[in-house]
Amino acid sequence: MKHPFTKDDLITLFTALKTFTDPTYCDGQTRLAYTQEDEAAHRFIITEMENRELTVRQDSMGNVFACLLGQDPTLPAIGTGSHLDTVPQGGAYDGIIGVLCGFYALLQFKPQQLKRNLELIIFRGEESSRFGISCLGSKTLIGAIDNEKWTDSIDNSGKNVFQAIDEAGYQSSALNHCLLDDAYLDAFVEVHIEQGKCLEAANKQIGIVNGIAAPTRFCIDVIGHADHSGATPMNQRQDALVASASLIMEIQRLANNEAHHGTVGTVGKLDITPNAMNVIPGHVRFYVDIRGIEPDSIERVISGLQKAINQTQHDYQVQIKRKLLSQESPVKLSTVICHEIQQLCEQQNISYMPMLSGAGHDAMYMAQKYPTAMIFIPSYKGISHHHDEFSAIDDITLAAELLKDTLASLANK
Amino acid sequence: MKHPFTKDDLITLFTALKTFTDPTYCDGQTRLAYTQEDEAAHRFIITEMENRELTVRQDSMGNVFACLLGQDPTLPAIGTGSHLDTVPQGGAYDGIIGVLCGFYALLQFKPQQLKRNLELIIFRGEESSRFGISCLGSKTLIGAIDNEKWTDSIDNSGKNVFQAIDEAGYQSSALNHCLLDDAYLDAFVEVHIEQGKCLEAANKQIGIVNGIAAPTRFCIDVIGHADHSGATPMNQRQDALVASASLIMEIQRLANNEAHHGTVGTVGKLDITPNAMNVIPGHVRFYVDIRGIEPDSIERVISGLQKAINQTQHDYQVQIKRKLLSQESPVKLSTVICHEIQQLCEQQNISYMPMLSGAGHDAMYMAQKYPTAMIFIPSYKGISHHHDEFSAIDDITLAAELLKDTLASLANK
Repeated sequence: MKHPFTKDDLITLFTALKTFTDPTYCDGQTRLAYTQEDEAAHRFIITEMENRELTVRQDSMGNVFACLLGQDPTLPAIGTGSHLDTVPQGGAYDGIIGVLCGFYALLQFKPQQLKRNLELIIFRGEESSRFGISCLGSKTLIGAIDNEKWTDSIDNSGKNVFQAIDEAGYQSSALNHCLLDDAYLDAFVEVHIEQGKCLEAANKQIGIVNGIAAPTRFCIDVIGHADHSGATPMNQRQDALVASASLIMEIQRLANNEAHHGTVGTVGKLDITPNAMNVIPGHVRFYVDIRGIEPDSIERVISGLQKAINQTQHDYQVQIKRKLLSQESPVKLSTVICHEIQQLCEQQNISYMPMLSGAGHDAMYMAQKYPTAMIFIPSYKGISHHHDEFSAIDDITLAAELLKDTLASLANK
Repeated sequence: MKHPFTKDDLITLFTALKTFTDPTYCDGQTRLAYTQEDEAAHRFIITEMENRELTVRQDSMGNVFACLLGQDPTLPAIGTGSHLDTVPQGGAYDGIIGVLCGFYALLQFKPQQLKRNLELIIFRGEESSRFGISCLGSKTLIGAIDNEKWTDSIDNSGKNVFQAIDEAGYQSSALNHCLLDDAYLDAFVEVHIEQGKCLEAANKQIGIVNGIAAPTRFCIDVIGHADHSGATPMNQRQDALVASASLIMEIQRLANNEAHHGTVGTVGKLDITPNAMNVIPGHVRFYVDIRGIEPDSIERVISGLQKAINQTQHDYQVQIKRKLLSQESPVKLSTVICHEIQQLCEQQNISYMPMLSGAGHDAMYMAQKYPTAMIFIPSYKGISHHHDEFSAIDDITLAAELLKDTLASLANK
């Protein structure tokens, strides 16, 4: 076994992984779940793991498990991991860095050096880009498959998740075998880039994530009437865009009122029909993304939105349909593990801050079964899902070292 | 000469013109300026005119002039006319009905029956759909070509107006010969569908248009910062869509305040980058269309918009760029001709109302040189630029008869 795995080895793997990208996209990394590029990246990393004498297995949907044996393999293991798939034209850090930090951490130890097994998990299909569903791998591991939704959610070529799994050479009919035993892990720790600006703004090297804000998402259809912009007096209009603007302002106000709870509300996507300079918008469809860690706070935004919809229908003579797309519970992470990481930071004079994750992660699902925490690395300007995504190598190796110490501490308990 | 031209002849021509549409568009009429379909439609109608022994000529850009001789051809003629081109997937009435009513009106008279010549003009390129510039034909006739703008404004295939004119077999280098002499016409009357709901709402058969509200148009770029919707706290956002929503609400408020002057303000087109559910909008571009007949009222909306931009930049930490796309003066039409039409309506017990045109028309440019008026026909539900565009045949023939009487009265002066 080649020991140790160095910072240079990490950079070499990072650089190699960047080559597994769909060449039809010009910017950044495009490695959608279960595509050719995604499969190739997984095969590449499995070979690297095996070359370094980790024991590797893949389950029925292709989740990868790389094991470093402990002194007592009968004990629940300590897990770490993240994902390799990306959004279209995404960055090279999101997910990948968590896998590489885990790889680094495991290989700082010899087999049987720690009491428990360490297990590095590479979750499949974390990004929702291909099927509109995120965290396929981690959901499957904890038994959270939604058969109906997964059957209905198809990619651009008309394939659903199950068909894509089979096409990639796995076995969608055997996904129930992927379910992990309650005693499989004793703890799980995911390293990830922050994808926000909080660490940079606070000038901290490490974020200790004590909660993950899950999104509640709505699709809002505002139906007015498309009329000629010149020939329709102001009082004869049913302008779907003006009504939508009023709702967007209200969502902003509602979220601002809840900001002290860490709640956020965003309208990121909006489409107008017919979208012509001289036609009053007849139909606007937009999407609302509400996230927070406090269920009561999220609920106040949701009920405020419904009140605003009722008022807007009346004020602007439009019809508004609200469809719930997803409503996941926010997750509080393990205070015990967070405390463990915090102590390590203090002992080693690492500048850190406790924080929430606004974005969802595989750790959110692992937390439903195992004590879980996350370590965040600063993101340059908070940019993510973009080819300008960047984290400094010193911050990455600091996190990899901190993960190593955390896993060791947890594995010797 | 086949006399008279009947209601049935008008319906036959209307039905025939509907066949000249780009078959790649499934709905409605698609006959963009200077395309193959547009050329074919013009050739068809010219043949019909010649078959009925009108004297037809085309100028260097393809504008069609069909003449019915009067007793004294040395006197300035009385003009009527409209256009045959359409927006993509547009209706069958916009423009076409004006041409057909003119055709009908001319052929109710024998040559030398009236004192002055009657002249039916078919203006080219009234719709801005292909090049982003409207009323190419009427602008050219009054010498309002903007060489720089016409050179720069290209269609989807990269061709500009001049290239399209040449490609259709006309001569763009000779457009200055299209300029009409000051004494060419003594008056001009255009029949057009209303494209609004005012006549329908007031239950009137005829609108006598005494003014045309010209659009002032802006392109507004709101530049914020694209960040992760979950990972960016409310107070760290530069949300270009929220800032845009605030401006849209303010434009609505400003226009509502001026509604008693007939002024309107619309945001019809808006595009977001990157337009993804989980990304705070980093850039929004939208278009503002302000129309009215009172320059002071329009100016109050424009200056209010600038104030709102300054305030919004400050409130939402975004950068806003405002680009003026067009600023045309509203046009008051001839009170003398409007009075003439009004008298005819009263004599014939036709229900009418004086009104403004919110949409621009070729008559707007003709009015800069000749006493001009317009006759509006009710539009079903105000729908226009859409395959549901519809006007009742009885309303159309009523307008054609009224035009005939108006032209006769003007031609005998």
